[in-house]
Amino acid sequence: MTVKQLTLPELVSTCVELGVRGVGLWREPVRSHGTGATARLVRAAGLSVTTLCRGGFLTATEPAERARALDDNRAAVDEAATLGTDTLVLVSGGLPAGSKDLRGARERVADALAELGPYAAAHGVRLAVEPLHPMYAADRCVVSTLAQALDLAERFPADQVGVAVDTYHVWWDDTAPAQIARAGASGRIHTFQLADWTTPLPEGVLDGRGQIGDGVVDMREWRGYVEAAGYTGPIEVELFNDVLWARDGREVLAETVARFVEHAGHR
Amino acid sequence: MTVKQLTLPELVSTCVELGVRGVGLWREPVRSHGTGATARLVRAAGLSVTTLCRGGFLTATEPAERARALDDNRAAVDEAATLGTDTLVLVSGGLPAGSKDLRGARERVADALAELGPYAAAHGVRLAVEPLHPMYAADRCVVSTLAQALDLAERFPADQVGVAVDTYHVWWDDTAPAQIARAGASGRIHTFQLADWTTPLPEGVLDGRGQIGDGVVDMREWRGYVEAAGYTGPIEVELFNDVLWARDGREVLAETVARFVEHAGHR
Repeated sequence: MTVKQLTLPELVSTCVELGVRGVGLWREPVRSHGTGATARLVRAAGLSVTTLCRGGFLTATEPAERARALDDNRAAVDEAATLGTDTLVLVSGGLPAGSKDLRGARERVADALAELGPYAAAHGVRLAVEPLHPMYAADRCVVSTLAQALDLAERFPADQVGVAVDTYHVWWDDTAPAQIARAGASGRIHTFQLADWTTPLPEGVLDGRGQIGDGVVDMREWRGYVEAAGYTGPIEVELFNDVLWARDGREVLAETVARFVEHAGHR
Repeated sequence: MTVKQLTLPELVSTCVELGVRGVGLWREPVRSHGTGATARLVRAAGLSVTTLCRGGFLTATEPAERARALDDNRAAVDEAATLGTDTLVLVSGGLPAGSKDLRGARERVADALAELGPYAAAHGVRLAVEPLHPMYAADRCVVSTLAQALDLAERFPADQVGVAVDTYHVWWDDTAPAQIARAGASGRIHTFQLADWTTPLPEGVLDGRGQIGDGVVDMREWRGYVEAAGYTGPIEVELFNDVLWARDGREVLAETVARFVEHAGHR
């Protein structure tokens, strides 16, 4: 998503040129290119798929809509398995139109995880519940903190459900370091993602995630928390940023690698 | 602030017409009108001043800037005393330019409270630390949750430092009800404010607070929490909203009263 202006073949070749050995993919471009074709493309280049983004949107109350969401998430699990990644990231979904019932929406996410977790595990895929920043709680993701995400995940085995830790969503939260330790203790940090927090936020607050180093987040500090919690998996950089998307994608990817080394690399 | 398009005399007369018995004031219009003159205006109309907004912005590292901030807060205490309100609302301030040290900034707020608390209490004024929504953590308020605000407040006597509970800032937080109980148990709910959460958020995310009933917040539920915690003080409605500000202020105030009764009134 960081460089969605690149085609998948361009993305893969640029990763190879830059020495990036793994890549997180989003479903839409994968489907456009073909899931099997994408799997072959990535594998032939010697890359791994770190995660597939994203399933979720599991808060609907209407039965047909809910059934469609579950079907779509099972399809996402299948796609993840085809791509050879063990992790499907889930964004829970927001409040249904007209609802003020956050607690009920969070319970429906739990109900959906109970259905999807065994299916995912049977396909060798773990679900990573991603808490999104509280500014998305109404319209995108009723799971707002790592504590909430873990309260959900811990109802299930760790090989079924864990969490995604993204600096953009948790950097403000003074309880997040302890929650990262909690997640690590039960093997539930299923991915770790970086994005920086820059202000002012754009209208709609979706596409203003900052390039690493441009904002207020101490990337090395957060990397330290997940590593102290035992995380040894890949570190993803996931930026949604209109300014970055308008630039040359290869240049943005090279810049991102350089920023990663500068701000998040081991010294 | 909800109807900042009204002059203070218009505001006061409209409150009287509508049967609103107390009003929260902001420093800027009070200073323009004159603090003593405002006190006389409000008192002559039989109104009380519920709170004065706002002091704070206590996170600077530079000594001269810090001294200026403390002076300004002492002046705000004086103004609150002149107006006859017992509560000064504080917004802590964001990160200094270039800083990534949230923890340090929060500690500087505590240091400032240690200086300001006794001064305020000596003038019959309590400080209300207002946690702002985490989307403001970088540039406006490093105190993002009721738990953080109480961790700060509890270092001091309750007649010096408590918290402001504003639905707009805490509605997403599943730990907030327990924190409201915690605040109530030590007599630290110094004000309770209502605003609704509507999306999409506007650029800069400052002026999109929804009219009561337009968004996802269950006002009666939150009123229930503060009342169960023993709060018997005034309930303020504080909206920052470009659309409301562009309308006739008297009409907006009448609408706000009607919405309050409909969505937050005792049934």
